[in-house]
Amino acid sequence: MAKKKYRRSRSNSILDRKIGIKPGHLYVPTEAFVPRFFLMSFSEAMFEEQEFETYAQLLKRFKELPDARHWIDIRGYGDLQIQEQLVKDFKIHPLQMEDVINDYQRPKVDEYEDGLFMITRMLRWSEEQHSVEDVQLSVFSNANYVVTLQSDYADCLDPLRERIRAGRGVIRQRPPIYIVYAILDVVLDYYFPVIAEIGKYVDELEHSILKSSSKITLQHILDLKNELVKLRRIAWPERDKLVELLRMEEDVLPENLKVYFRDAYDHTIQLIDLIDSHKEMASSLVDLYMSTVSNRMNEIMKVLTIISSIFIPLSFIAGIYGMNFARENPETGEVYPYSMPELYQPYAYPILISLMLLLILLQLYFFYRKGWFTKSF
Amino acid sequence: MAKKKYRRSRSNSILDRKIGIKPGHLYVPTEAFVPRFFLMSFSEAMFEEQEFETYAQLLKRFKELPDARHWIDIRGYGDLQIQEQLVKDFKIHPLQMEDVINDYQRPKVDEYEDGLFMITRMLRWSEEQHSVEDVQLSVFSNANYVVTLQSDYADCLDPLRERIRAGRGVIRQRPPIYIVYAILDVVLDYYFPVIAEIGKYVDELEHSILKSSSKITLQHILDLKNELVKLRRIAWPERDKLVELLRMEEDVLPENLKVYFRDAYDHTIQLIDLIDSHKEMASSLVDLYMSTVSNRMNEIMKVLTIISSIFIPLSFIAGIYGMNFARENPETGEVYPYSMPELYQPYAYPILISLMLLLILLQLYFFYRKGWFTKSF
Amino acid sequence: MAKKKYRRSRSNSILDRKIGIKPGHLYVPTEAFVPRFFLMSFSEAMFEEQEFETYAQLLKRFKELPDARHWIDIRGYGDLQIQEQLVKDFKIHPLQMEDVINDYQRPKVDEYEDGLFMITRMLRWSEEQHSVEDVQLSVFSNANYVVTLQSDYADCLDPLRERIRAGRGVIRQRPPIYIVYAILDVVLDYYFPVIAEIGKYVDELEHSILKSSSKITLQHILDLKNELVKLRRIAWPERDKLVELLRMEEDVLPENLKVYFRDAYDHTIQLIDLIDSHKEMASSLVDLYMSTVSNRMNEIMKVLTIISSIFIPLSFIAGIYGMNFARENPETGEVYPYSMPELYQPYAYPILISLMLLLILLQLYFFYRKGWFTKSF
Amino acid sequence: MAKKKYRRSRSNSILDRKIGIKPGHLYVPTEAFVPRFFLMSFSEAMFEEQEFETYAQLLKRFKELPDARHWIDIRGYGDLQIQEQLVKDFKIHPLQMEDVINDYQRPKVDEYEDGLFMITRMLRWSEEQHSVEDVQLSVFSNANYVVTLQSDYADCLDPLRERIRAGRGVIRQRPPIYIVYAILDVVLDYYFPVIAEIGKYVDELEHSILKSSSKITLQHILDLKNELVKLRRIAWPERDKLVELLRMEEDVLPENLKVYFRDAYDHTIQLIDLIDSHKEMASSLVDLYMSTVSNRMNEIMKVLTIISSIFIPLSFIAGIYGMNFARENPETGEVYPYSMPELYQPYAYPILISLMLLLILLQLYFFYRKGWFTKSF
Amino acid sequence: MAKKKYRRSRSNSILDRKIGIKPGHLYVPTEAFVPRFFLMSFSEAMFEEQEFETYAQLLKRFKELPDARHWIDIRGYGDLQIQEQLVKDFKIHPLQMEDVINDYQRPKVDEYEDGLFMITRMLRWSEEQHSVEDVQLSVFSNANYVVTLQSDYADCLDPLRERIRAGRGVIRQRPPIYIVYAILDVVLDYYFPVIAEIGKYVDELEHSILKSSSKITLQHILDLKNELVKLRRIAWPERDKLVELLRMEEDVLPENLKVYFRDAYDHTIQLIDLIDSHKEMASSLVDLYMSTVSNRMNEIMKVLTIISSIFIPLSFIAGIYGMNFARENPETGEVYPYSMPELYQPYAYPILISLMLLLILLQLYFFYRKGWFTKSF
Repeated sequence: MAKKKYRRSRSNSILDRKIGIKPGHLYVPTEAFVPRFFLMSFSEAMFEEQEFETYAQLLKRFKELPDARHWIDIRGYGDLQIQEQLVKDFKIHPLQMEDVINDYQRPKVDEYEDGLFMITRMLRWSEEQHSVEDVQLSVFSNANYVVTLQSDYADCLDPLRERIRAGRGVIRQRPPIYIVYAILDVVLDYYFPVIAEIGKYVDELEHSILKSSSKITLQHILDLKNELVKLRRIAWPERDKLVELLRMEEDVLPENLKVYFRDAYDHTIQLIDLIDSHKEMASSLVDLYMSTVSNRMNEIMKVLTIISSIFIPLSFIAGIYGMNFARENPETGEVYPYSMPELYQPYAYPILISLMLLLILLQLYFFYRKGWFTKSF
Repeated sequence: MAKKKYRRSRSNSILDRKIGIKPGHLYVPTEAFVPRFFLMSFSEAMFEEQEFETYAQLLKRFKELPDARHWIDIRGYGDLQIQEQLVKDFKIHPLQMEDVINDYQRPKVDEYEDGLFMITRMLRWSEEQHSVEDVQLSVFSNANYVVTLQSDYADCLDPLRERIRAGRGVIRQRPPIYIVYAILDVVLDYYFPVIAEIGKYVDELEHSILKSSSKITLQHILDLKNELVKLRRIAWPERDKLVELLRMEEDVLPENLKVYFRDAYDHTIQLIDLIDSHKEMASSLVDLYMSTVSNRMNEIMKVLTIISSIFIPLSFIAGIYGMNFARENPETGEVYPYSMPELYQPYAYPILISLMLLLILLQLYFFYRKGWFTKSF
Repeated sequence: MAKKKYRRSRSNSILDRKIGIKPGHLYVPTEAFVPRFFLMSFSEAMFEEQEFETYAQLLKRFKELPDARHWIDIRGYGDLQIQEQLVKDFKIHPLQMEDVINDYQRPKVDEYEDGLFMITRMLRWSEEQHSVEDVQLSVFSNANYVVTLQSDYADCLDPLRERIRAGRGVIRQRPPIYIVYAILDVVLDYYFPVIAEIGKYVDELEHSILKSSSKITLQHILDLKNELVKLRRIAWPERDKLVELLRMEEDVLPENLKVYFRDAYDHTIQLIDLIDSHKEMASSLVDLYMSTVSNRMNEIMKVLTIISSIFIPLSFIAGIYGMNFARENPETGEVYPYSMPELYQPYAYPILISLMLLLILLQLYFFYRKGWFTKSF
Repeated sequence: MAKKKYRRSRSNSILDRKIGIKPGHLYVPTEAFVPRFFLMSFSEAMFEEQEFETYAQLLKRFKELPDARHWIDIRGYGDLQIQEQLVKDFKIHPLQMEDVINDYQRPKVDEYEDGLFMITRMLRWSEEQHSVEDVQLSVFSNANYVVTLQSDYADCLDPLRERIRAGRGVIRQRPPIYIVYAILDVVLDYYFPVIAEIGKYVDELEHSILKSSSKITLQHILDLKNELVKLRRIAWPERDKLVELLRMEEDVLPENLKVYFRDAYDHTIQLIDLIDSHKEMASSLVDLYMSTVSNRMNEIMKVLTIISSIFIPLSFIAGIYGMNFARENPETGEVYPYSMPELYQPYAYPILISLMLLLILLQLYFFYRKGWFTKSF
Repeated sequence: MAKKKYRRSRSNSILDRKIGIKPGHLYVPTEAFVPRFFLMSFSEAMFEEQEFETYAQLLKRFKELPDARHWIDIRGYGDLQIQEQLVKDFKIHPLQMEDVINDYQRPKVDEYEDGLFMITRMLRWSEEQHSVEDVQLSVFSNANYVVTLQSDYADCLDPLRERIRAGRGVIRQRPPIYIVYAILDVVLDYYFPVIAEIGKYVDELEHSILKSSSKITLQHILDLKNELVKLRRIAWPERDKLVELLRMEEDVLPENLKVYFRDAYDHTIQLIDLIDSHKEMASSLVDLYMSTVSNRMNEIMKVLTIISSIFIPLSFIAGIYGMNFARENPETGEVYPYSMPELYQPYAYPILISLMLLLILLQLYFFYRKGWFTKSF
């Protein structure tokens, strides 16, 4: 069972949707993984973590612990029955389940069974492709449990799982909404290194342009801009989501936890700030690229002009003395003294060569004064 | 009766309106189709679907089934009397009927007889013309019926009709407003493949620019941008329409159905996101195109400069030795030893040729070092 | 009495205002027309239309018909006394009267004597100057009458007058506010053909650019953009005006007439949409123009480079064999066998010519392969 | 005592502020004028206008007329004691007094002692420098008096003073807030001629660009753009100020005077409209300038290409016949019939010259057909 | 203990955050300073200022003076225990403490223990690097004390400390919130000289571009733009912070102090205005740079074209008379009178030279008339 890769940048999954199917229709996406089932149950007194073979086993164990809080973590959408079970067992609205599977949804938050349904996107920077890969994480939460659903086996939540296992801080005492915050916090934490990577890549591109290395072309810059547009398309709804969360009622989001969500909100604002700055930088790179192209053209033209300006007039002079005006009339033998008399002077040739050298030097000086020998870029 | 095509991009129908006519004036648009009449009647118990010869027959059957819910589906605006009948029988405001016929209206929703009047636009991508074709669909809905009006016989609603026929899901149990949602859902579903096609076309254009195939010009990119501007002009009011729908009273839009309209709203937001991204990509293509033009100019200049820089100086040297400075005074026979002595050396010629070859090699090396032989694009 | 033209695009009338004069000061604008007085009086029972010689006559007739509704239509601002009379007789605020005369005012609506004061702008496209001409129409309306004031004798309201004369529809039964709507409707109806003309002109410009006909320059495009900026400056406040109208109290704007104003509002939204689209198209034309300039430069450079690359090296070769290296020492008669031996081969000349032709063919093939013979635009 | 000039465009006064001084600290700005004191007192019954030697005299006379309304007009900030007196006598907040002296403040309105404190900016167009000069006017007003403070002796308020002296209109009967309006009206009236001047300058620049007169460079356009940015920076807060004024309570701004302020508000909206239009025009000029540079390059390249394309091939042909291929073997006397036989035809030379002329004509025709002889701009 | 520098422009500290750590986790940043402890205590009666060796000493003295107001000033984050103590002693929320240390936070204000928590950023212009350096200042304030925290030993608050020491003004009588204002005022005061420096740098860059000195490249302009983007990213939240402060309740921000914060708010608005103007100026510089590149290209092309246009045709003429058309048949001795008869005219050579000079003069006049000798930039 090959490990599915994080999705490539211009994911068309949203564009592949089947048309006219019943809203809330469930289906198995192509290349979906066989689902795996994880359950973390904890209360102030106990902690238990397990992977189950089947969904039924998980559900059974979940029901055996009515007083604990649970994190049900299902990875892979490869089984239609599981989807239908989830809809039934956790009272998920079919439209929401469809959003989960659809696998390209803007980050958003919705009401769900006295709790909330949240879609967030996990990011990763692909060093080779210089692109942002993102994968969707769907979260249902309630007074008793958090259900997370994702298409992939690997995710970025391991540091959080570690924290729960270690029982550090207050994480096991707080209600499941705090887990939702913790998930959001970890996910957003991963956005910053992505932007840091983009910053490094911008510097790299700038350096390449200035070195006018031919390997870097405008296309790389434009691809980067598209990545930033995409990032912005993800970060804005993350912010909107947090605005909506912060407006939620006391019973969904207790007042004493709002400070955490406000902190996450501050992070999304910083994110958008940083993305916008990087977008402006990328736009500047386009200007920079265009100006190097123009400057290189200037360099080429200078070479051409210097060479031509020096040698074309000299060639003309040489051409003059290559003319065959007759010194004397071949028939009458009459001498024409005004016919190219220079040719018959003993020192004419060395004098002419010297004058030509002088002319070359004068022109070089003229071009030097115009600053044409200093590289303009 | 020729099948009318989906309208071309820069439809001027809105701009052809007659001036100063009475508001709410009804008329038969040029090239309008002879109307066809379809009726779908259904309740939890029954289902019936029929095409009628005349409007009167449809109306009769419609009135015979007072307890069923109906979808009256009239295609073609070619008969003024039908329009007037509709205004009278269904209590449509003449201004609304004018909007229906006018055939270019922004998507919008209005109040109508304890129900609503909605204009939506169906899209199709024309592969040959690389343009978006759109046709207007007008919907009147009420507690008992849905009336749809369109200029064309063909539309994109067949998947929905199939679903009603098949009786799948809850579609026959729900009030007509659910049909309105279903229509909107199908229509919006068709927007995504259009954007997917645009995405493919963007890739194609990018590829063509990079191959500098001369067949693709800036004009194609600008036409695409105009198509995206047009799409945006359609998608934004679709979103506004949904905002307005979601704000409607309980009696028009029951609370339990709002989740569906909210889902459609999410789709329009995604649509606008995607359109904006594609617009930014198209703008990037303009930059890319401009830079390839500049790069091609650089290539041309390099060829010119290399050739000129190599051969103009050499021509000058050859010109020097083509001069006719006399070796001896033709009259006195006096020999001028400084007059082009090189010409009288036994190995001067092969030496000169060798020097010239060396000069060529040196210049080639110089240009190679400057990187002029690597393609800059 | 020469007919005054619709005002030219960059009307400076607003910029010619006298400084420091008393607010609400009335004056006769330069080149103002002698006023003409029209009165239309109508009720459900009667209809009467007349042009009067003097304002006094009009006022007399107006007062004789207290039960009818009136449209007082005064054209030309050439008489200061009339202005003062109007202010007095119709209780117009002097500041409003100043706005009427001032002749460049943004479209707006204000309160006026239990009624409203509205400024709207009539548009016309000038085919010769490719510019939008606009003239201001001021409307005072009340439960009993509508007063319209304009600087010009001709206007675009004749279709409306015809409708009142013909008594078509409900126009004679409705209150004067309906006349206000009808005026607005006719005025806005004239905006669409103006935009249609602009659309045609955009197509024409695009065609000219692509044909690289030298008659069309960037200046035309920029002038068009300025016209669109101006149109937008007119259309936006028209929209704002309607927003304000729709918010007005029941006593000014009866609820049952709001549907008409909402329809006009929809038209202004469509207008702004269309203006913005055309502005984006005009901006695209600038890009297109710039790219044709660059492409034409490329064409020129290609010609130069092809000619130079072919003939400069050949000239050099010809130059080589034009050198005068001596075959033998003129003094000693010693033969130099390495001194240009090619010159002394019997078939050297035809071989050289053949080689040169071959070189030409090779270069042409090289340039053909580079695609330099296909027109890049 | 030299007359201080209106301030130059990029005034740095705001940027010269001392750091860390106590907020509300008063000081004498560098180059400040010795203050002059003017008092205008008037009621319906009386009118009196006087310049006083000292502030004490002014204050004395002001207190002697408790029933009149006053306009206290102090010009020049050169005396710290006066500032402190004003703060004390008129209960001005030190922070407000600091704003007055600071001399670069955005236009704004603040509350002040049952009245208002307003900062407005007077404009003047400098013909020589093509820049906008602005000077700050501070106004304190109250039920009894208006205090105006400015750094300069000259201002633009003389038309208003004339009106008060002449007693025209209602100006002497109204409360001081009406004087505030009148001041604002006069100040805003001066904005329009400034914009008219900018409009003329835009036309002038456009004309210069099209004539490609070398005197006008991009720098002039960019300077103009900066002036417009500056104007916008002044006009926007003027508008905001009026919005705030219109929201003020009945006791500060009586309802019956609001129509005047609304009129001033309309003027600021028009101003911003006009500034934005002119900014778009200035941006268009940048495009126009860039395109003339490109077009001029095209012109230059055309000259080069036409000359080179005609004469380089001809030179090559001449070079061919300048080659020295031997007609006979100098040693054996053997004749080489294929060695440049053209040279030995009696009419070869005139034929060749004719062919060359024909080639020139053909090329000229070719370039003519390509449209290279019509000026592209 | 080396003095840490103000942070460089593209600080990545925010991007270096550890992922998945517990929210509110405290840590010692890399290169953090050993903390120093300052306490200023004052009331209307007393004043005391001291630096303490340890935090415990400071706390002890702080507690000994319960009636005074205090400014606790801690510089350097190098000790984790101090952080934990502060959290405990001053009831700081761990998330807020994390924000303090994190060292890149947007300016913001938050609630804190009946007081407020504010983050502000101190600026400095680096002359050498032409960049803005900023360092974060965190302020906790309450009815009794102000706690400031910063990473660096040096700051810009010394003028304020001087004022407190001197006891000037009301600073010692007012509640600590006034100290917060005073801090904000000093910090914002430092923004203006930074913008003044940027203004000077813009002028400098403009001058360099116009002198086309090759030392200044587009990169400098783009770096400057990035600095302005960064400044804007700091100034906007400063403004938002003040908006939020002004909305605070009476108990946090007494009504009589609001005038001060409103003044600070006005300053931030001016700041943003100025930053935006400078950004527009920097954008103009890009245009200016691009146009100088194009103009310089024009200059180069003109030189090339003038030289080529003059000498290429002349070379051709010289080439003509360098051809070897035989005057007589070498075999038969037959004379060819049409074969280059010009060569056998006695004055042909001086006539030709004169004609050539005339041609040169004509061309120079032609280029002079075209204006090619006036520098276009």
